[in-house]
Amino acid sequence: MKAINFEERSKKIQNRIIEKDIDLFLITPSINFGYLFRGFFSLSERLICGIIFPDDQTQLIAPSFEKERMQIETTFDDVVTWQEEENPYEVLRKSTDKKIKTIALESSTPFDVYIRLKKQFPYANFINGGIFVKELRSIKNDAEIERMKKAANCTAEGIINTLDIIKESQSELEALKIVQEQMSSLSNEPGWAIVQFDENSAIPHGHPSKKKLKKDSIVLIDAGTTCDHYFADITITSVFGKASKEFLKIYSIVEEANEAALSTSEEGIPAENVDFAARTVIEDAGYGKYFTHRLGHGLGLEVHEDPYIVKGNKNPLVNGNVHTDEPGIYIPNKFGIRIEDDILISNKGERLANINRKLWK
Amino acid sequence: MKAINFEERSKKIQNRIIEKDIDLFLITPSINFGYLFRGFFSLSERLICGIIFPDDQTQLIAPSFEKERMQIETTFDDVVTWQEEENPYEVLRKSTDKKIKTIALESSTPFDVYIRLKKQFPYANFINGGIFVKELRSIKNDAEIERMKKAANCTAEGIINTLDIIKESQSELEALKIVQEQMSSLSNEPGWAIVQFDENSAIPHGHPSKKKLKKDSIVLIDAGTTCDHYFADITITSVFGKASKEFLKIYSIVEEANEAALSTSEEGIPAENVDFAARTVIEDAGYGKYFTHRLGHGLGLEVHEDPYIVKGNKNPLVNGNVHTDEPGIYIPNKFGIRIEDDILISNKGERLANINRKLWK
Repeated sequence: MKAINFEERSKKIQNRIIEKDIDLFLITPSINFGYLFRGFFSLSERLICGIIFPDDQTQLIAPSFEKERMQIETTFDDVVTWQEEENPYEVLRKSTDKKIKTIALESSTPFDVYIRLKKQFPYANFINGGIFVKELRSIKNDAEIERMKKAANCTAEGIINTLDIIKESQSELEALKIVQEQMSSLSNEPGWAIVQFDENSAIPHGHPSKKKLKKDSIVLIDAGTTCDHYFADITITSVFGKASKEFLKIYSIVEEANEAALSTSEEGIPAENVDFAARTVIEDAGYGKYFTHRLGHGLGLEVHEDPYIVKGNKNPLVNGNVHTDEPGIYIPNKFGIRIEDDILISNKGERLANINRKLWK
Repeated sequence: MKAINFEERSKKIQNRIIEKDIDLFLITPSINFGYLFRGFFSLSERLICGIIFPDDQTQLIAPSFEKERMQIETTFDDVVTWQEEENPYEVLRKSTDKKIKTIALESSTPFDVYIRLKKQFPYANFINGGIFVKELRSIKNDAEIERMKKAANCTAEGIINTLDIIKESQSELEALKIVQEQMSSLSNEPGWAIVQFDENSAIPHGHPSKKKLKKDSIVLIDAGTTCDHYFADITITSVFGKASKEFLKIYSIVEEANEAALSTSEEGIPAENVDFAARTVIEDAGYGKYFTHRLGHGLGLEVHEDPYIVKGNKNPLVNGNVHTDEPGIYIPNKFGIRIEDDILISNKGERLANINRKLWK
């Protein structure tokens, strides 16, 4: 696989903070931290904080006993450490020797970290620097697209294998375990999944339960494995046996909506137009009130990220955006059908994985 | 198991916000959200926010299509919903009809959520309300102790079973999988673990690798499964075969430090004294510089929470506190030994699980 160029990412962010006259950009462990500095871990109660300065410098603040691990897991050579009995926020302030007027914080920085930073820099203006990283992340380069294609293909194949393996009277929870194993055996990375049978499929974002698979059950699997931290997000709705007429009728509407979105999605088109294209198909078929969520969202290091494909988002799509195309019709207490692909904008929109979904009799 | 009384928890927090003259306490999905409102899930880009008002009222703000799920997964009946194309922060502001002067935010609230709230309530004073929940969480009641004892016992048994099962030439990663399976088969809940062989055990918080188990390898397993979201955190350091003299010598120092901390830990004692008791044993034996971290931390819904057992924490321990007792000696490039128990303060300190650790020849 093509290597990820972390230095280039840091450099681009540095250009933004110079432009915006920011003295420090502080990034605590988070997805954005991993994107910029390689290490993916979460912030514990012990402060770890990457700093990008407007000059050609980056620095990490970390607990003394974690220094070695940090040098292995992140891109930082320069680690300023603090001892267990020290105040890490004081250590951070002292390591930034000049007058600080504007500090940008990564968007997920916990509120109590902000409060403690404010105590150290009482006269500084704090702004949200997460947006710089968000913008950068929403445009995928070749190395990222390579990873996302792999994740999408492993996910689609893992779901299809699962639909082939599952047996009558297995529960949603058992099927969940199978789809995770199937995906991971292909990608060698972990994965998440939602599995819903019959009327449960009518609840978007519902949790798998002990509900059992029956003959002719509707099966909705929404899942994603990763490739080097990049996610896929694919939904296949199928039938364990013979599909009913009602299922087939609604399926073809959702399918048409999914196709309408795909053919609308291209460079320069406002994001909301793609939602509108799919929604119009479903509304015209009389099922508008059963399509209860937006058409999709950006995809990458997070399952949900920019660009959001939703009414009100007038930002034009740009080359390198990857977004889901996931129209759904959910008939309460009956069933739901969602068809979800991952779309890359490369002038026109194209699917990251081509999937043969019609697995019922 | 005894039921968790969520209403009582909310009521106690309400008393604190009345006392502090706070108009709204906003809690976005987080551990503290789960503690107060039952539902454990993380905040996505779609705003979900629990609100405690000083009068007898609580309210949830959630996306319209998630209302049903929220009513199942949380304690809220009153759900104010927003549509995909609405600004949820505006909906939140409109749902709080009176004049708002002081808003408390849960401590993990992301910085960008704070920025958006500030836009809606430009004249409000924002303070960290997380401390009220933190205080409450640090004192466990009978229902919580019951869960934590179960988690501790399943963890200890899971680690011991693993040490019995693992075979020469298996990797740390393979052993990690085994210990997770062993714990989960006892607790029916997930678990986390660190497995380190030989010189890897000298790196606290290191990640399991492909390093292989050999005859007479030192094996450090630090692990925890949960019971109803309550964590255990137990470390056993053992030898896969025959223990060397050097291992036995250092082991007995760490063991003595662990015992010294236990017998110091009791109601009314400043937390740092417990760290000091263990550290003195290790320093007196000449290994002070190899005990590179604090003695321990509180334990509960998070693996690290109040009270922290560290130099500088002069707060007295109180009945219901649960903290780890985990002295360690780490000889770089050789091996590390850590012995970790979970201690409940019930006048005197007592172990949540009594463990027979000496599993070597």
